[in-house]
Amino acid sequence: MLSLQGEARFNRRAVKVAEAQRRVLEAVQPLPPETAALWRCGGRYLAQSCEATVDWPPFARAGMDGYAVHAADTAQATAEQPAVLRVTGTVAAGQVYAGTVQPGTAVRIMTGAAVPAGADAVVMLEQTAEAAEPGAQAVLVKAPAVPGQNVAPRGEEFRCGAVIARPGTRLGPGHIAHLGTFGYAEVQVHRRPRVAIFATGTELLPVGAPLAPGRIRDSNSAMIAALVESCGGEAIPLGHIADDPAAVSLALEAALDEADAVITTGGVSVGDYDVMAVIMRNLRGAAATRAGAEDPEGAAHDLLGAVVREGAQLELPGQGAVPRGAGHGLLFDKVAMRPGSPTSAAMVNGKPLWALSGNPGACHVGFELFVRPALRRMQGSSSPLHRTVNARLGAAVRKGSPHDRYVRAVLGERDGLWTAELLAFNKSSMMASLPEANALVRIPAGPEGAEAGAEVTALLLGPLHE
Amino acid sequence: MLSLQGEARFNRRAVKVAEAQRRVLEAVQPLPPETAALWRCGGRYLAQSCEATVDWPPFARAGMDGYAVHAADTAQATAEQPAVLRVTGTVAAGQVYAGTVQPGTAVRIMTGAAVPAGADAVVMLEQTAEAAEPGAQAVLVKAPAVPGQNVAPRGEEFRCGAVIARPGTRLGPGHIAHLGTFGYAEVQVHRRPRVAIFATGTELLPVGAPLAPGRIRDSNSAMIAALVESCGGEAIPLGHIADDPAAVSLALEAALDEADAVITTGGVSVGDYDVMAVIMRNLRGAAATRAGAEDPEGAAHDLLGAVVREGAQLELPGQGAVPRGAGHGLLFDKVAMRPGSPTSAAMVNGKPLWALSGNPGACHVGFELFVRPALRRMQGSSSPLHRTVNARLGAAVRKGSPHDRYVRAVLGERDGLWTAELLAFNKSSMMASLPEANALVRIPAGPEGAEAGAEVTALLLGPLHE
Repeated sequence: MLSLQGEARFNRRAVKVAEAQRRVLEAVQPLPPETAALWRCGGRYLAQSCEATVDWPPFARAGMDGYAVHAADTAQATAEQPAVLRVTGTVAAGQVYAGTVQPGTAVRIMTGAAVPAGADAVVMLEQTAEAAEPGAQAVLVKAPAVPGQNVAPRGEEFRCGAVIARPGTRLGPGHIAHLGTFGYAEVQVHRRPRVAIFATGTELLPVGAPLAPGRIRDSNSAMIAALVESCGGEAIPLGHIADDPAAVSLALEAALDEADAVITTGGVSVGDYDVMAVIMRNLRGAAATRAGAEDPEGAAHDLLGAVVREGAQLELPGQGAVPRGAGHGLLFDKVAMRPGSPTSAAMVNGKPLWALSGNPGACHVGFELFVRPALRRMQGSSSPLHRTVNARLGAAVRKGSPHDRYVRAVLGERDGLWTAELLAFNKSSMMASLPEANALVRIPAGPEGAEAGAEVTALLLGPLHE
Repeated sequence: MLSLQGEARFNRRAVKVAEAQRRVLEAVQPLPPETAALWRCGGRYLAQSCEATVDWPPFARAGMDGYAVHAADTAQATAEQPAVLRVTGTVAAGQVYAGTVQPGTAVRIMTGAAVPAGADAVVMLEQTAEAAEPGAQAVLVKAPAVPGQNVAPRGEEFRCGAVIARPGTRLGPGHIAHLGTFGYAEVQVHRRPRVAIFATGTELLPVGAPLAPGRIRDSNSAMIAALVESCGGEAIPLGHIADDPAAVSLALEAALDEADAVITTGGVSVGDYDVMAVIMRNLRGAAATRAGAEDPEGAAHDLLGAVVREGAQLELPGQGAVPRGAGHGLLFDKVAMRPGSPTSAAMVNGKPLWALSGNPGACHVGFELFVRPALRRMQGSSSPLHRTVNARLGAAVRKGSPHDRYVRAVLGERDGLWTAELLAFNKSSMMASLPEANALVRIPAGPEGAEAGAEVTALLLGPLHE
């Protein structure tokens, strides 16, 4: 039987957060493109370049309902002394006026219609009145028009051929308006990653089960599923598994078969039953063996199976040397941060595997720092890392730390300043404040903590807008 | 035949933005609750109150892998002079240790396990070493522990019965973690609104069609669909319809049958073919007739049908008097703002109908100000309006306006300040900057505009976080 114990569990080398992020982002690749209907593309990442297929507007376009005129004809117009113009026709949106507007005449025009040849301005309807001239319909213009007034010239907004959206752009409603304008009824977007999720831990019960002494419910799986969906992934929650290496190994293999990525939670620290820690340790050697593996599928099976059969503990040669696109091997199994230092990541046959902490707060931080950017990258994002801002700390942090801390916070505005109120600084296990957090604040390593009002870097997590 | 023209089209009375929002929010009601699996509830609005069903943690819980001890036994411990404690057993997460920890002894314990009776601290594994005493396993403790160290006492985070989420809360991953912890495998959330969308305009072509002279593609429908989905609605894009009152009226009736709400775009201004303006005008009188209507279905049919049959133009008695929950009648058909002043809204048999501008920029503003809050409210949101912040204007606005302006902007951070860079201030029709906008900045009415650095109110629109 495999022993999960032994001193090897302490032999993890911590990498810095930025290095761990770099390794994950270099290891994962965008998923293949697929075709999607334009109106369903909100939140998806573009897998093609899109250009303006015509000048926009495609013709000089009326911006108001009113009359197309020669501006010079109205130069002296007032409410008391209106200009009187003969109305020679009407052009609705979608129509094209066949003639040319002559001096002294006007054409009734609707918003969005093509401004007829000859006219150089549109007078809004509210500045006109109808007048009957003997034998011809006429309009009274009660204010002077200037050339170009209420006319959007052809090509004012876009020139034909201009790039309107690049590969890797996350499509919002505004992009969709542009793509619709230029005829992209369907677009190429990267496939959404299918992400299998399971929790390890003999103490776990399903969420729907009654509690029992010493037991807790698996709340992390549902939280991770919601996090996965919040960044465009499709969550596949697979439940929870006891701390049994054979069972966990089999579950991992099945999950890797079915999904594009796997997230586990729990069992990643230095406890006697920390099965994910052992599985990750066995992947340390995988990068070295990959080149010689003739059957990647079989190799994966062996490497995970080895946990059960041999407990092999190989060293990853030259940590940090995982090449771009590496398909197999440990990426890191310790990060120089708090909370979540045992957070681990590996590639297994080209698919990422994250082993997050079972502690809800550390699990959340691990997801945000190492999973969310990678899931964005798998969707083709050209800017997968969190946006950061400089914010003022609302209250002092009295406690130093040998490692950078990533503390949940509420980011807001006070007197026009970006402010950050820290939540649960001293208790990384606390989950009470999880719902309120909309940012992670980085408190740099050091003996002192930080003063109230100190400038800190905040990673924007979730919707600040509602 | 119905004439869409005539002076009545100018007889609209503008209401202020806040008043228009109030009318919409008072008219719409939350949709009925439905049961949803917890892990699928991200972004949904809670239709029940949820309480902690147990103290949390439910037992004194080890926060580290290590040993449960009497802290007093380790008071003098150092690396050179460790305390030696006899190990009487092991407790893994999920197990309960049957005995009591006696002075001079320790129990090996894993993160998340219940701390055995007697023990008052947990020493982390890294501060211990194994030692063999004659006849009994022992542990060396190399640093003093203080009482409570690495132990989360029962009830530290939540007391049984405490409210963890209230009705109207938008559920994020953090809420889902809480709900899972307390056994809510399913929760009651409000149904998502099904929102039918169509564009009116003879000039419109399907997005997939080649352009023709004077014609443009219907890009607004796809943009609105993406906006609807971005606030939790289910979009039902129904395409576009020519400016024909009978066709539009029939399409509206069909849409209202199928959906919980309808959004149209275009035909809402004062042009000769602005069919939505006429339909809305006919709804002006509806609130007055509602009390006497015995058959609401029939009444709706009549009121929309009347557009075709009679062109009835009734006045809404006492604008602003639409009672809360009013099921039928115009809410407003002009708003004192730019762009989008012709934006209109009505209730038809208890369902909201918005007639947005056909101008993409004005359509976008109308959606954000009057549709998004209502769709949130239909999902039960307890805070449906946009969050606002005070921000500094990046550049001066030289142009005054008789009405408040809502200008697309990029909200960001510079030197710790919230800053707003306006986009497309002078051209409300411009859609070129739609994708970049993450806020709407309110420029108050006045002759002057605003100075660079002036404090303005910004409505947060979209994801600031990526």
